[in-house]
Amino acid sequence: MKILFLAFLVFVLSATGALADPLPSWNPGAAKQRIVAFVDRVTDPQSSHFVPADERVAVFDNDGTLWSEQPVYFQLMFALDRLREMAQADPSILKSDVLKAANAGDMKALMAAGTKGLLEVVTATHSGLAVDEFNKEVRAWLKTAQHPTKKRGYDTLIYQPMLELMRYLRDEGFKTYIVSGGGVHFMRAFVERAYKIPPEQVIGSAGKSSYQVRDGVPVIMKDPGIAFIDDKEGKPVAIDSKLGRRPIFAAGNSDGDFQMLEWTTAGDGPRFAMIIHHTDAEREWAYDRESHVGKLDRGLEEAGQRGWQLVDMKRDWSVVYPRLP
Amino acid sequence: MKILFLAFLVFVLSATGALADPLPSWNPGAAKQRIVAFVDRVTDPQSSHFVPADERVAVFDNDGTLWSEQPVYFQLMFALDRLREMAQADPSILKSDVLKAANAGDMKALMAAGTKGLLEVVTATHSGLAVDEFNKEVRAWLKTAQHPTKKRGYDTLIYQPMLELMRYLRDEGFKTYIVSGGGVHFMRAFVERAYKIPPEQVIGSAGKSSYQVRDGVPVIMKDPGIAFIDDKEGKPVAIDSKLGRRPIFAAGNSDGDFQMLEWTTAGDGPRFAMIIHHTDAEREWAYDRESHVGKLDRGLEEAGQRGWQLVDMKRDWSVVYPRLP
Repeated sequence: MKILFLAFLVFVLSATGALADPLPSWNPGAAKQRIVAFVDRVTDPQSSHFVPADERVAVFDNDGTLWSEQPVYFQLMFALDRLREMAQADPSILKSDVLKAANAGDMKALMAAGTKGLLEVVTATHSGLAVDEFNKEVRAWLKTAQHPTKKRGYDTLIYQPMLELMRYLRDEGFKTYIVSGGGVHFMRAFVERAYKIPPEQVIGSAGKSSYQVRDGVPVIMKDPGIAFIDDKEGKPVAIDSKLGRRPIFAAGNSDGDFQMLEWTTAGDGPRFAMIIHHTDAEREWAYDRESHVGKLDRGLEEAGQRGWQLVDMKRDWSVVYPRLP
Repeated sequence: MKILFLAFLVFVLSATGALADPLPSWNPGAAKQRIVAFVDRVTDPQSSHFVPADERVAVFDNDGTLWSEQPVYFQLMFALDRLREMAQADPSILKSDVLKAANAGDMKALMAAGTKGLLEVVTATHSGLAVDEFNKEVRAWLKTAQHPTKKRGYDTLIYQPMLELMRYLRDEGFKTYIVSGGGVHFMRAFVERAYKIPPEQVIGSAGKSSYQVRDGVPVIMKDPGIAFIDDKEGKPVAIDSKLGRRPIFAAGNSDGDFQMLEWTTAGDGPRFAMIIHHTDAEREWAYDRESHVGKLDRGLEEAGQRGWQLVDMKRDWSVVYPRLP
């Protein structure tokens, strides 16, 4: 009976992957070692660092942490494509020089208009429709749009090692959340399929929205204006407000994630923070201090003294993107 | 072997309560019948109304739906008690006539000051401290404070039939959320213990908050000012923003819940909405159209034609509050 039980246990453990390498796309090294050691420690009921499953909260930035963000945030590519499509149907929507420049693909003029210009593009393309309709627009875009240089769909430019990491954490009783500067409605259109993260575990920036009953049918409308920017100090504030728990594991890639990692690691008990360092100009991109997106300066400076794990994309990852089917 | 299996099955079913009445404090009648029929329908994989577990989202208002709300919202009782305590330590905090009236227990003057007056009391008592500290204040208050007429702790004035209902739904694969006009930080101090609802499943009103590093220690501070009022149209907006799913089950008791019930029941497939009607002046309170809290007018008017189940507290509940230990 005991032998049978042991055989059964081995079978179950193999089937669930507990005996296999949970992070096959991570090269051997400090990053992989520390992740596994941390997970072992917090999930071992005999360990003094054991953390009950309820409190195993892991938060992940999205742009540059779970998928690429060059040459610009993919959500901006969506906004520009959508603006062009809308302008084709009705040119009168191009009410300002900024919108005209964006429609003409004049990125220089658009960038010169700064945050205000970007907000104008976002407002034109992200409001005036119901959340359900917007969701369909994003899905339709993802089906056909291609990254300008990588020549594959944006939602395939996700990081295989991070997919493995999130799956590993979930298998070990963690709950994985996205906490991103990206729009919450934009992300919900694909993150469940791409990352196996359900809509209620997505925290992001948000435009204003309202409840309206149209011809007797209630809808949530996306309105002009920004309700919340989920970046920098906003990240811990949003996590507190929406989760009410302090994460024990946090992953980011830019200084926009600094406060989230700082708050995560300042809690009692075992904590883990990692910063994805984009070092791979060949397979992905190489950038940090001087980048116009995903700028990483303070994080790079202080990671060592704070005990945050820098992940060197080139050195630590044997694969970057999943193989296309 | 087959017999053994059946015996085992019966044992498991009895142990999990599947053969027992899941709603013992609900009197036989339409309300109880319809709840059970709905749950059976959406959880039966053979039913054309089957709903996958992921989408079994049930939302509950708190004040008047899960616990009592008379003579005033319990959170206001907390604010008044805390104001008095703070003023005892430092009388200079009573900077306005409204705060002086509140401190003196002059409810008439306080009510005459309207929403603006109440906000002043809330600001004085709900800001200027870290979320963790506030949480401790609420817990300490709940340990000693007594309801003025019921003479028991506020967190014991919860509805036994609703505890059973939430437990039943969870046993049937639902996820139960609170969606309340009450403050999210206030509720999180007790709802996990009182209702078995974890912090990440609590949606509520919120004051402004900020991330601050104090002497090297990062905290979330509760600041003056209101960030979001989770009432009326705000409820579906907040559910969309935080959950990204439309509930299939909603329970409320006042017109502040109308839009949440309307939005819930307007979705495709099977839906259930209930309104707790406070009809029990003896065991609880009796109020609806004319009440200063939990006013129920439109909901009472339209529940019938909309197919929303009115729960008559006096008739439908054999027990109101749980027996004290």
